[in-house]
Amino acid sequence: MSPPRRPGPSVRTRVREVRNGGAVVREDRLATEEPLEIRCSWPGVDGHRVAVTMRTPGQDFELAAGFLFAEGVVGGQEHLHTVAYCTDTNLTPEQEFNVVTVDLAGPPLRHPAVRYGGLAGASSACGVCGTESIDDVLALVASFPTRDHAATPPPVDRAVVHGLPDRLREAQRVFDTTGGLHAAGLFTAHGEPLVVREDIGRHNAVDKVVGARLLAGATTAVPVLAVSGRIGFEIVQKAVAAGVGLLAAVGAPSSLAVDLARRAGLCTVGFVDPERFVVYSAPERLGV
Amino acid sequence: MSPPRRPGPSVRTRVREVRNGGAVVREDRLATEEPLEIRCSWPGVDGHRVAVTMRTPGQDFELAAGFLFAEGVVGGQEHLHTVAYCTDTNLTPEQEFNVVTVDLAGPPLRHPAVRYGGLAGASSACGVCGTESIDDVLALVASFPTRDHAATPPPVDRAVVHGLPDRLREAQRVFDTTGGLHAAGLFTAHGEPLVVREDIGRHNAVDKVVGARLLAGATTAVPVLAVSGRIGFEIVQKAVAAGVGLLAAVGAPSSLAVDLARRAGLCTVGFVDPERFVVYSAPERLGV
Repeated sequence: MSPPRRPGPSVRTRVREVRNGGAVVREDRLATEEPLEIRCSWPGVDGHRVAVTMRTPGQDFELAAGFLFAEGVVGGQEHLHTVAYCTDTNLTPEQEFNVVTVDLAGPPLRHPAVRYGGLAGASSACGVCGTESIDDVLALVASFPTRDHAATPPPVDRAVVHGLPDRLREAQRVFDTTGGLHAAGLFTAHGEPLVVREDIGRHNAVDKVVGARLLAGATTAVPVLAVSGRIGFEIVQKAVAAGVGLLAAVGAPSSLAVDLARRAGLCTVGFVDPERFVVYSAPERLGV
Repeated sequence: MSPPRRPGPSVRTRVREVRNGGAVVREDRLATEEPLEIRCSWPGVDGHRVAVTMRTPGQDFELAAGFLFAEGVVGGQEHLHTVAYCTDTNLTPEQEFNVVTVDLAGPPLRHPAVRYGGLAGASSACGVCGTESIDDVLALVASFPTRDHAATPPPVDRAVVHGLPDRLREAQRVFDTTGGLHAAGLFTAHGEPLVVREDIGRHNAVDKVVGARLLAGATTAVPVLAVSGRIGFEIVQKAVAAGVGLLAAVGAPSSLAVDLARRAGLCTVGFVDPERFVVYSAPERLGV
């Protein structure tokens, strides 16, 4: 029996390229998409299923750690005992690398609810609305016992903002040969990259960079998070949870993303290029 | 008390645009993002919560109908009794337009499981893998009693494929002033648009176009689905469920998306522009 094949970030495939009326068969690379199940164990609870996300394999432990951090389940590296691929005997080799179990060092700071569509699905009685979603995130972040959100991240110079997309793409070019991945990167206030990750899901890429910092034991607030796509509510939620000071994107933010960023004091900028950018919240952080 | 405000597809906001070192305050439009809860009722079951998705308000009934169609809960218009915004007295006005209840004409064809991350979360005992996800979709589609998937959609000319992104953008320009929305459109084999919808979530845009056809009582297979972004597993899943013949995208597909499309016989093309496109599955449908 061959050993379990660990999936890579991209796979080879044969495609037909049509151009000028002709078709040529050639090799191509596709971004790998596979489900990842995140399980959580703590004293008295074994392998509680927390989430399933379609992700690009690679840095799965970072993804799991970052996800649990954004959810408020863990507050820092000290809450993580081990992070490992599942070795249940009833899993096939293919499944084994799609299940990550996070063993907590103690009870979770907040019980990990099963979430779907980005929202906790605890009650089916109440309705949903954006204002409530924002209140929930702010209450969650305020409850984080181990994160010092009073510490204001250092200011960021406008020239640094203009350069972020190029810096992100430089790091991304190293990995991405598929044209199918989102990138997220944490940067210093001077625009130096701390960690850059890619994933088929933009929220996963953010979880990976935040999780990488967490696993490395970093405790300081992060000045800048840059993402390759658009800014939705979930991205702002993760940025706020991670104590990010400035969130920059190549694309546009949504209404709810801006509403949350304004209430949380997170500076968001969109449509960033070398010529211009648009500031949607906390403009005072950029002195504009 | 003012009447409930029904949210629109975009909202006005004040931003600061930074350019050439200067900052100008101006009005801008943001794509609206609000949670939508989809509930389902059938004889003996009242308001079962099926999903919560972050979506752009508008065509919410189409979204709910298309979602339930892709899930195999309903097979056609005849299974829908009513689709309506929720009027629970315990909902606030803001919540009211974020909850849609679909009243089925009879029992669901398949029980709507609570889903998260694109996967049904029924069992926490088993692991997850891509092959299983594909098997699940194929089994689901094979079980659709009212859809004639044996009927081969008409072939599509290559010239039609090259023109799809422009056709989609033409329709999109009418709505999109925010730069923040994904588009999906159903087209005839000759490239004539049947229905085009936009949403902050690409899967929602696909649910809306499929749901629009469903609510209009259309029963024929759809030759072409075009999307503005990339092709992930979930998009192929919805295309296969809707009996689409050709799925075209401006961006790249993922590995799992191509695997599913190949097994389902769906022709997928990516990187479509007037000069070229790449065929990933079922090339015989384009004669290449």
